Amino acid sequence: MTGPLSPAVTLSESQAREFAQRMLVAAGVSPDKALLVASVLVYANLRGIDSHGLALLPHYLDQIDAGDLDPNATGRIASECQACLLYDGENGLGAVTAEICTGHVIRLARQYGIAIVVARETNHFGPAAFWTQRIAAAGQIGIAVCDASLQVPPWQGKAAKIGTNPISMAVPHPEGRGWLLDMATSTVALGKLEQAKLNRQETIPYGWALDREGRPTNLLSAALEGFLMPLGGYKGSGLGMMVEILCGVLGGGGMAPDIRGIRQHGAPSRVNHSFLAIDVERFMPLPTFYERMDRLIAHVKSAPPAAGYNEVLVAGDPEWRYEDERRAHGIPILPGPWETIERAARRLGVALPV
Amino acid sequence: MTGPLSPAVTLSESQAREFAQRMLVAAGVSPDKALLVASVLVYANLRGIDSHGLALLPHYLDQIDAGDLDPNATGRIASECQACLLYDGENGLGAVTAEICTGHVIRLARQYGIAIVVARETNHFGPAAFWTQRIAAAGQIGIAVCDASLQVPPWQGKAAKIGTNPISMAVPHPEGRGWLLDMATSTVALGKLEQAKLNRQETIPYGWALDREGRPTNLLSAALEGFLMPLGGYKGSGLGMMVEILCGVLGGGGMAPDIRGIRQHGAPSRVNHSFLAIDVERFMPLPTFYERMDRLIAHVKSAPPAAGYNEVLVAGDPEWRYEDERRAHGIPILPGPWETIERAARRLGVALPV
Repeated sequence: MTGPLSPAVTLSESQAREFAQRMLVAAGVSPDKALLVASVLVYANLRGIDSHGLALLPHYLDQIDAGDLDPNATGRIASECQACLLYDGENGLGAVTAEICTGHVIRLARQYGIAIVVARETNHFGPAAFWTQRIAAAGQIGIAVCDASLQVPPWQGKAAKIGTNPISMAVPHPEGRGWLLDMATSTVALGKLEQAKLNRQETIPYGWALDREGRPTNLLSAALEGFLMPLGGYKGSGLGMMVEILCGVLGGGGMAPDIRGIRQHGAPSRVNHSFLAIDVERFMPLPTFYERMDRLIAHVKSAPPAAGYNEVLVAGDPEWRYEDERRAHGIPILPGPWETIERAARRLGVALPV
Repeated sequence: MTGPLSPAVTLSESQAREFAQRMLVAAGVSPDKALLVASVLVYANLRGIDSHGLALLPHYLDQIDAGDLDPNATGRIASECQACLLYDGENGLGAVTAEICTGHVIRLARQYGIAIVVARETNHFGPAAFWTQRIAAAGQIGIAVCDASLQVPPWQGKAAKIGTNPISMAVPHPEGRGWLLDMATSTVALGKLEQAKLNRQETIPYGWALDREGRPTNLLSAALEGFLMPLGGYKGSGLGMMVEILCGVLGGGGMAPDIRGIRQHGAPSRVNHSFLAIDVERFMPLPTFYERMDRLIAHVKSAPPAAGYNEVLVAGDPEWRYEDERRAHGIPILPGPWETIERAARRLGVALPV
């Protein structure tokens, strides 16, 4: 086991955002769309979700370069009927689709109390929490799900048939720093196995992965030849399907068999998103909701810490801490991702930020 | 290890339902409400979810006897505003609240495309799948969640602070036998530990339980002194909180600190439910939805079975098989639950069905 790697560079939030924006503009994205995508990626880095931060940028650029997506498509409303809206992303950038769709879902939930917007034929939208937080900032409970390339086998199966299909939920909070869930429906993301490999671990916890015969394993080598495990077993498979139904099936476009990852080139990703918003004030005034959330969280945190821990956390706590730390001290980028980013910058003729 | 226990009795669906109804009527429940509750419990038995079947009846009867709930309350609409409705169960039977609330959510989703109904101050509603299936039968995607007495610690904690807070989702299907998810947000229910004890097992799979210091354990004895584990670890804690927010916080009545179980007497349970319905036809004609569901399920089932299995199942498959089997051959009731049921029948002066 080695210690944590030293970063290749450490960027301030604005350095990171401006650099990402310049890279995207150099690849042909309009400045406003480039700023949006850059903001979403930097948000992930700030919150410690480095797998969804600048490390994605070279893949987005490769997708643009390969003609897999249309960097300047904005999509269109396919249908709108009271509190339900169906959007066709027309293979544009996922963040562009998601910004438009979260705008619609907030508008419709304001009008009807609850609303759902499903987007089809779009692309990777970054961390789902970015979008649910946007809905929460409008005084609404925000829920977002999306599908992804096939990485997870169904329980009792030994071929990847479902994506890591994340679920995010955010709630209104007076300072915009509330309880915030954003989780893949596999026990861990592929990045955790890659990290264990970098750390030269031989074993991983049971529950993370299956070997290539679909059996739970704690051997990293077997896991790397095998599959990510659905969260907790068959229930994770059910949650992954729930997500696929709410975005893929309802979207009416591509679905699980058709979805491609950001590293697979030559055809559109055909990703789906689904956004749901509930207007809290239809149930109670916002200050009452804040009080009740505070009371619930205090109740949960009143549990004495388990052996080996010194506090109980709720969803969002680790990320808010990362955000404070990284806003103050910058975003560390590890040598591996940085090398790929540097190479992309050279190819596009974009100056490095440091 | 011993084999599966022989049942004390085997009842037909109608025998079980009529007997349960008579018991409830003898306890002072009106015949129509008694029939509803009996139908919900027998539904659980038919689907092999015996923990939520007739085994619950003596507990419901004890609650009525203790004056914990009002067996003839129907509740009232606390507020209704477009697609959002808040219901106060007024401490009536959970199934009575849930029947009224699923009726409202179907009506509102028909009108607006999507709707949410939150019920507060109510009681145990049986298996959540009963209610989502009812919504699905109306051509809508049905989602139901509820909270429950405190049995699960937050991840990193060592005191039970959250219920097993289940999530159910059902989808329309031409024969009403579609994909159907109904899962607690703990890895397993307490019943699985009790079953392992009956089977005289010494160990259980990692991931099921925590010892009393909050550490994952595979020793049954340590698990029985400890806690149920949130599904897959910290993500299960997040899902449990998500459920509590959607029903408990939004309900405006009792919430996690206040919820009591059906075995805790002397005060109302203060349980919350939340029902969500999405009208599929706002997105596509139902036959198209059916086709897309079929295609998705066929895709998932095309995974070769993992070592040790001979087929891949999706949510609902095991329960539909139980239902066929038990409709044909009856519902077996094990000696333990049957003894408690018999005792209750004697107390109420109700004749046994066999």
